[in-house]
Amino acid sequence: MDMRAPSRGFGPSEYRARLARAQARMAMSGISALLLTTEPEVRYFTGFLTRFWESPTRPWFLVVPAEGDPVAVIPSIGAHLMAQSWIRDIRSWSSPDYEDDGITLLAEALAEAVPPGEWIGVPSGGETHLRMPLADWEALKHRLHDRLFGPDGGIMRTLRMVKSEGEIDRIRAACDVGTRAFARLPEIARPGVPLAQVFRRFQMLALDEGADWVPYLAGAAGAGGYGDVISPATDAPLQAGDVLMLDTGLMLDGYFCDFDRNFSLGPAGPAVHDAHTRLLEAVQAGFAAAKPGARAADVFHAMAAICGGSEVGRLGHGLGMQLTEPPSLIAADDTLLEPGMVLTLEPGIALAPGRMLVHEEDIVIRETGADWLTKPATHLPELPL
Amino acid sequence: MDMRAPSRGFGPSEYRARLARAQARMAMSGISALLLTTEPEVRYFTGFLTRFWESPTRPWFLVVPAEGDPVAVIPSIGAHLMAQSWIRDIRSWSSPDYEDDGITLLAEALAEAVPPGEWIGVPSGGETHLRMPLADWEALKHRLHDRLFGPDGGIMRTLRMVKSEGEIDRIRAACDVGTRAFARLPEIARPGVPLAQVFRRFQMLALDEGADWVPYLAGAAGAGGYGDVISPATDAPLQAGDVLMLDTGLMLDGYFCDFDRNFSLGPAGPAVHDAHTRLLEAVQAGFAAAKPGARAADVFHAMAAICGGSEVGRLGHGLGMQLTEPPSLIAADDTLLEPGMVLTLEPGIALAPGRMLVHEEDIVIRETGADWLTKPATHLPELPL
Repeated sequence: MDMRAPSRGFGPSEYRARLARAQARMAMSGISALLLTTEPEVRYFTGFLTRFWESPTRPWFLVVPAEGDPVAVIPSIGAHLMAQSWIRDIRSWSSPDYEDDGITLLAEALAEAVPPGEWIGVPSGGETHLRMPLADWEALKHRLHDRLFGPDGGIMRTLRMVKSEGEIDRIRAACDVGTRAFARLPEIARPGVPLAQVFRRFQMLALDEGADWVPYLAGAAGAGGYGDVISPATDAPLQAGDVLMLDTGLMLDGYFCDFDRNFSLGPAGPAVHDAHTRLLEAVQAGFAAAKPGARAADVFHAMAAICGGSEVGRLGHGLGMQLTEPPSLIAADDTLLEPGMVLTLEPGIALAPGRMLVHEEDIVIRETGADWLTKPATHLPELPL
Repeated sequence: MDMRAPSRGFGPSEYRARLARAQARMAMSGISALLLTTEPEVRYFTGFLTRFWESPTRPWFLVVPAEGDPVAVIPSIGAHLMAQSWIRDIRSWSSPDYEDDGITLLAEALAEAVPPGEWIGVPSGGETHLRMPLADWEALKHRLHDRLFGPDGGIMRTLRMVKSEGEIDRIRAACDVGTRAFARLPEIARPGVPLAQVFRRFQMLALDEGADWVPYLAGAAGAGGYGDVISPATDAPLQAGDVLMLDTGLMLDGYFCDFDRNFSLGPAGPAVHDAHTRLLEAVQAGFAAAKPGARAADVFHAMAAICGGSEVGRLGHGLGMQLTEPPSLIAADDTLLEPGMVLTLEPGIALAPGRMLVHEEDIVIRETGADWLTKPATHLPELPL
């Protein structure tokens, strides 16, 4: 028994509320159990937070029955940590096991929760995947050939899109860390500094300001804009006249922020200045459109009317336990916005072939409209030469 | 055209050599194309390096035909970065697309490479998963119903286990960064400092010493050992008499190190001291056993003879583009060791229930035996009180 209890995370009531919402939807969908295999899905119901998912070796399973509490079927290396959660039914084996890497245990847990002829729901739609070997998936279906496997009816997507106040608090706290790190950018960015060095130093600033971990950092620099928004940094030095963009997904207590800032090294030219102004206007238009009852597509159209569509494929997205979550701000997304949804507004403008600007802020939908989670940018800051 | 070419990564010859080895094995296995969907699999043949995989929204596909060059079927957001690689056939679409998220493009690319009645190989065994929605996977198989889908015959596992000199150089460089960061631990760890603060500061040290990114950091502290090796840090302060363990997977140019160090806050008691000495002996025994022609299981047995089996399920593993890779150092793994394989040696000892010590070093198999990639620990360092 470790006497140093963690001061973070949620109490059991948060997870019981999530479970109750899931089970209500499972009853409506005729699903007798959910089978979950990915980090955010398992954590959503258990609070099981570890960076060990970085190791692809071992599968992890959570069975969420239509009635009763979840059953964790996990490698023994995780049993000690899972035992600190509210989950009481933890079944573990010494993984990796080349003969049977948890499949017998998992099949037993599913068989207990799902009578023959009934449905096991597995997240199968957009933005999901099944984190287990395909051969084991086939073996599981064969083992439980008298049960039915099908999609989860979008239950996980629907549940996770609407955040609790505790989740919103954590996302806001992550945004605050990012804001403080961006405020210190002049300490690390000036002409002659390699972009890779700026990336390293910015991650250090984020940690120094309280981030637990910086899973995502992208960015770019170039005269009159940059070529893409997902590249790693090169050793090329920053130059006077560059626009520098950094886009961070740092994590605090298991939740992400995801926003970027642009900086001009010295005075910005009129084209960059105008484009950045237009991006801020587009964000404001998206903010105004992001109300309960509007659709994700409405927010997209409000921004696209000002900045056009985007080369990156969308103008924002959900945010929470993952860097990007449903919905997508695209014309085809008719998700109805509800209080508690957290979104990024991420318009982009192409100034020339291979020269774009992207700006991103984070918001939460409230009863009466949107609230900022980031402190929205008001201008293009200039870094001294 | 960006005039600032990246100074990192590999030239096309590295990827052509990997492709040739893959195609030789595909010919032997009767596989007409590999379908790859995960970050390391795609990067292995393309060099496509981005932290954007942190976003689960979009699928990414690589088709490796039995003859000719790979075809990248990827979201348009990645086309600019992929075009900087040696890959010339890049097919992209604006993702997310709720009607068709790349499946038509992917089916076309596969159909071109694979005549009806022939096999498409998909990694399906241990430590793999398919990173695409299950519903899209079913749709793809339906679309290509006259082609055969099956496992990849272990080709990806076999290829990736043996590293090139360029890969080994990068892993060694990552280990060197970790070594320098551990050498500075006295700057950040002393009684009274919360473990979470040590975690943040250690990541900053790793970045300051040249890490691109710190995807993995685990650790623990406790009197007489710790309870597990995958937990996140709590705000509990370090105490005199604790054993502090930090286990880092930092990344440099796309390759990981993975090793840990233990520290005693003040003098260690005899039980901790003896256990740590036994762990170092076990590592030396594993190192001596890790020769070409030996099996992974032989290295396991050499270490287990000294420290016993491990609660974490194995005594080491492969290492490279991922924090953990095949093989596993367990009794059941009969992988023949070959020159170029990179392994971690990771023995553990339980001192009491909930009190263990784990030690980890990284090695590479050479023609005549193992070489160190880390500078192996020689004693349990004592941090001043």
